[in-house]
Amino acid sequence: MTSANEITPERAERIMAVAHRLADAARTETLSLFRSPLLRPDNKSTTGFDPVTQADRASERAMRAILAAECPEDGILGEEYGGQSGQSGLTWVLDPIDGTRAFMAGAPSWGVLIGVSDARGPIYGIVDQPHLDERFEGGFGRAQLISRAGSVPLGARRGVALAQATLMSTYPEVGSPAEHAAFSRVASRARLVRYGLDCYAYALLAAGHVDLVIEAGLQPYDVVAPIAVIRAAGGVVTDWQGGPAHNGGTILAAGSAELHAEALALLKGD
Amino acid sequence: MTSANEITPERAERIMAVAHRLADAARTETLSLFRSPLLRPDNKSTTGFDPVTQADRASERAMRAILAAECPEDGILGEEYGGQSGQSGLTWVLDPIDGTRAFMAGAPSWGVLIGVSDARGPIYGIVDQPHLDERFEGGFGRAQLISRAGSVPLGARRGVALAQATLMSTYPEVGSPAEHAAFSRVASRARLVRYGLDCYAYALLAAGHVDLVIEAGLQPYDVVAPIAVIRAAGGVVTDWQGGPAHNGGTILAAGSAELHAEALALLKGD
Repeated sequence: MTSANEITPERAERIMAVAHRLADAARTETLSLFRSPLLRPDNKSTTGFDPVTQADRASERAMRAILAAECPEDGILGEEYGGQSGQSGLTWVLDPIDGTRAFMAGAPSWGVLIGVSDARGPIYGIVDQPHLDERFEGGFGRAQLISRAGSVPLGARRGVALAQATLMSTYPEVGSPAEHAAFSRVASRARLVRYGLDCYAYALLAAGHVDLVIEAGLQPYDVVAPIAVIRAAGGVVTDWQGGPAHNGGTILAAGSAELHAEALALLKGD
Repeated sequence: MTSANEITPERAERIMAVAHRLADAARTETLSLFRSPLLRPDNKSTTGFDPVTQADRASERAMRAILAAECPEDGILGEEYGGQSGQSGLTWVLDPIDGTRAFMAGAPSWGVLIGVSDARGPIYGIVDQPHLDERFEGGFGRAQLISRAGSVPLGARRGVALAQATLMSTYPEVGSPAEHAAFSRVASRARLVRYGLDCYAYALLAAGHVDLVIEAGLQPYDVVAPIAVIRAAGGVVTDWQGGPAHNGGTILAAGSAELHAEALALLKGD
């Protein structure tokens, strides 16, 4: 079984090259249906509205086809087509469209999430926003935003206390009633709270524009890639108890250890 | 005094050309500070946090300088530098950065709003998103999105009932407690509710991706340009009583007359 510290530079280069090929393939599939009258949302939920579209499925299929050819020894966990075990100890964790609701509404806050985990958690990730042509990458010594304008280093913002912080969360409801109460303890003390940006909020944190992202009710494919990008940019990510966040559930991502500690104490009700 | 139906095609062409010059100038000023470490938010509020930055001010000054040279006979109403009366009967209504909070957070949902009103209300507008290079224009027979990819016609989406509709609003709080209750009557019946997009939500409605935008607590400079663009795209905009929305307060923008009527009845508590 491979762990991150056993990965040679050559293997890391190969993983990154494959990840960018996945992201390129997902761009083609998603952009062909973004803002298209051909987009057809189906409802995955029997009790509410949990949309999936043919773009989500085509994006994940395109990525899995590349992995089948290039990395058959690795495992895969994808939102639409589930898990497939591997022999290498590495797992590709894929969300073909994080933010399908935003995708349906024409809002460019959705993204394609491509993460790589070993047995201990995320080691590399890409958060790609195809419509903006912005690709946030972190891991194996890299932390960068690649866009039409070239590439620039990512760096989380430090030295910001909660009273001056910008906090983001996708849904104002944020989880269960108890989770919402915990979230509100932090939100009521932040300078600015913004909703609705899906995975793009994590990218903005890694780029130093947002200080906190706090969410609940997450799946592993929602968080593995963002965690890798944020850590590579110097940020701190745990769940609301201070433990690992990569298995889903709650997440607290912060630009600095100090701000993380300040928010964590409020989430725990200390 | 000029009213819309007295404006010659030549004059309309000239107004539109000046409006695009304003939008170009505002792009230069805003993009030079978007995501820049030099951005400095000041707080305009004594009780909460109502940010303004040097980018808001520079953007409005650049637009006013063009108007002073090109259209000295017209009035101006701008968010940062207030009102200036004119003699022509036309007023330029400017929001140099709608969504300063999003601007501060690096999120590309802010926009530059350039509206033209006569005594009866909005006749022309631009909603410009510089980071996305997307300019939504409506009035004088035009309704188009101009972007890197060229220009495409705008058209609001029809034939969508509330139960299938996507609703947007910038703040989940939405106005006073009574206003919030009215908003919730509509939101609870919509298929999808999304928050946080500022003026970009109106642009998405004009482009046919979003069906309803419902907000409260607005100023004229928040709405004049969006109203012109949405009407040019075939949408319907009033306040929550069914009257004119261009003086600020509440707004109900819908893709079709039928959906507007369905939402209005719920807002009024009929």
